[in-house]
Amino acid sequence: MSANIERIKEETLTELGIKAFCRLGLPENDAKDVVQVLVMADLFGLSTHGMSRLESYGDRLKIGGINPKANIQVERVAAAMVKVDGDNGVGPLVGMHALRAAMEVAAQCGIGIALARGSNHFGPISPYLLLAAEKGFASMIGSNATTTIAPWGGTDARLGNSPLGFGVPNPGGNPFLLDMAMSVVARAKIRDAFKQGREIPNTWGTDAKGFPTTDPKAALDGFLMPVGGHKGYGLALMVDLFAGLLSNAAYLTHIKSWQDAPSEPQNLGHFFVLLDTNRLGSTQWLSERMNDFAKILLDSPAADPKQSVIVPGMIELQKMQEQRKQGILLSADTLQLLHQMTQ
Amino acid sequence: MSANIERIKEETLTELGIKAFCRLGLPENDAKDVVQVLVMADLFGLSTHGMSRLESYGDRLKIGGINPKANIQVERVAAAMVKVDGDNGVGPLVGMHALRAAMEVAAQCGIGIALARGSNHFGPISPYLLLAAEKGFASMIGSNATTTIAPWGGTDARLGNSPLGFGVPNPGGNPFLLDMAMSVVARAKIRDAFKQGREIPNTWGTDAKGFPTTDPKAALDGFLMPVGGHKGYGLALMVDLFAGLLSNAAYLTHIKSWQDAPSEPQNLGHFFVLLDTNRLGSTQWLSERMNDFAKILLDSPAADPKQSVIVPGMIELQKMQEQRKQGILLSADTLQLLHQMTQ
Repeated sequence: MSANIERIKEETLTELGIKAFCRLGLPENDAKDVVQVLVMADLFGLSTHGMSRLESYGDRLKIGGINPKANIQVERVAAAMVKVDGDNGVGPLVGMHALRAAMEVAAQCGIGIALARGSNHFGPISPYLLLAAEKGFASMIGSNATTTIAPWGGTDARLGNSPLGFGVPNPGGNPFLLDMAMSVVARAKIRDAFKQGREIPNTWGTDAKGFPTTDPKAALDGFLMPVGGHKGYGLALMVDLFAGLLSNAAYLTHIKSWQDAPSEPQNLGHFFVLLDTNRLGSTQWLSERMNDFAKILLDSPAADPKQSVIVPGMIELQKMQEQRKQGILLSADTLQLLHQMTQ
Repeated sequence: MSANIERIKEETLTELGIKAFCRLGLPENDAKDVVQVLVMADLFGLSTHGMSRLESYGDRLKIGGINPKANIQVERVAAAMVKVDGDNGVGPLVGMHALRAAMEVAAQCGIGIALARGSNHFGPISPYLLLAAEKGFASMIGSNATTTIAPWGGTDARLGNSPLGFGVPNPGGNPFLLDMAMSVVARAKIRDAFKQGREIPNTWGTDAKGFPTTDPKAALDGFLMPVGGHKGYGLALMVDLFAGLLSNAAYLTHIKSWQDAPSEPQNLGHFFVLLDTNRLGSTQWLSERMNDFAKILLDSPAADPKQSVIVPGMIELQKMQEQRKQGILLSADTLQLLHQMTQ
């Protein structure tokens, strides 16, 4: 284990996190919601979207960029549709309120949607997918994001790397969970290549003029390329339309950057579509089909004998199981910040 | 205009199409549903998914692979959720029944879903997206498909190139419509390269052992590569889970190939999720936001001055407008088949 990484028990991390967010002004129940999402992210191994966010969330809470005492409003506009006003609260808090509201109407109507506005970065999508799956809901969840991608054929950042997720429960085994952003690679991967003086494939990013480049420096000055070219571009737009435009949140360039304008509300939007699988068949019916579905895929002979076939969510769920036993890997910096803030 | 392509009026193509499907045994109203979807596909310029399908649909109808007298059943299992049994009817017929059923429950509950089983190839997704948008519904629609893609890390075709579509209406302008399959390119593009003796980029397909190849022949013997690698693979699986597994249709390798087993029911599945945008705001509110959204994207200075920025659905909607005036481009083969069948 590197000196910069430490292991910490899930319970300890949860306690420290709740204390830290309470110190930042959140009521305890709200802090619990936020920390549940961030700790699940760390359990999944998604450390860039886990408790490390305490730093940026905390900075913005301190200067009033995020509202620590958010009064979240849920308005039911139709039997199966709710609008959630996040009141500029911490993103995962708004996300948890929207998730619960969507589950409530979906349990009544078979399917339900929550459209949230007035939110902020809500963590990764996987935790929401798993929480929904554990209660028998299949889900489609998305959020918009700060602009990092140019329109197809365009030359400046006008849309975000908006993530989209899908989850399907398996009462007798692992659910399928897919949580994907729309860029070919994360910006951090281009930054690594630059530091190491390596060229990058010309499919990762464009220069500032919108042309594909193998020069990592030029790509850092330019834009991320969407997965599948115009397909990923189209998907990112559609996520923004549902998460931002239809929810009455900000969208595209109307979204304030949390880095450039940390003291201003971002007004991010999310959507949560949930399906109650109990309306479709018994848990036995669903388990049998889900286990058969996974088996068909995993039975495909591996191209590389050292690496088995992968199904969505498998890596994250294995990591969760392992870290629940052995402790969660956390950067020493994040742990130090947690200790400082909770002394 | 090539000798192999002719122009035909929308009304004429529609009349001929209805007559042809009636001759194949469909009741007139059912033929109208099928032809509406196929003619819209041709109007959009998606000719591979338009009236050219009369040939493969017709072959299967004649040998009992598709049921010409389908008795489609719609069962409402919850206030906002319906299950549709397509009774092995022609795909676009099942699709139109599912679309209408989903619109009905969505109008009542704000959001609604139809899950269809017992279906066949239902044409492209764009026509359904547009029909929904014209009535004020935003939509998420998907279908599963015959296996052409290997699992991530696997070496045989176990999942389909399942298409996924999203639509958002604009009461004061063009809707946004995205209809995408999950492969980097269509198989036809690899076939073209092979005929012309050209190498292909190593991102299009794998050889029969699952390794990326630049040899088009090897790729034709192998599998299509999904967009964005594991991301497109994950998306294709998720579409199959919602469209096939949850709908109680076939999925993955359980789907019969319409080419290898044309006389057997495929039992394809689809899902139609519709949102009634009228519950979210006025048509003026929606128009203003949609027009602003498009403007932000289109105002991005173009990388190539000869090619403007593109937004999803723009090309198809322009093509539709143009072909409604000038007639629809149709292959002479398809036109000949139409005339033969309706004499």
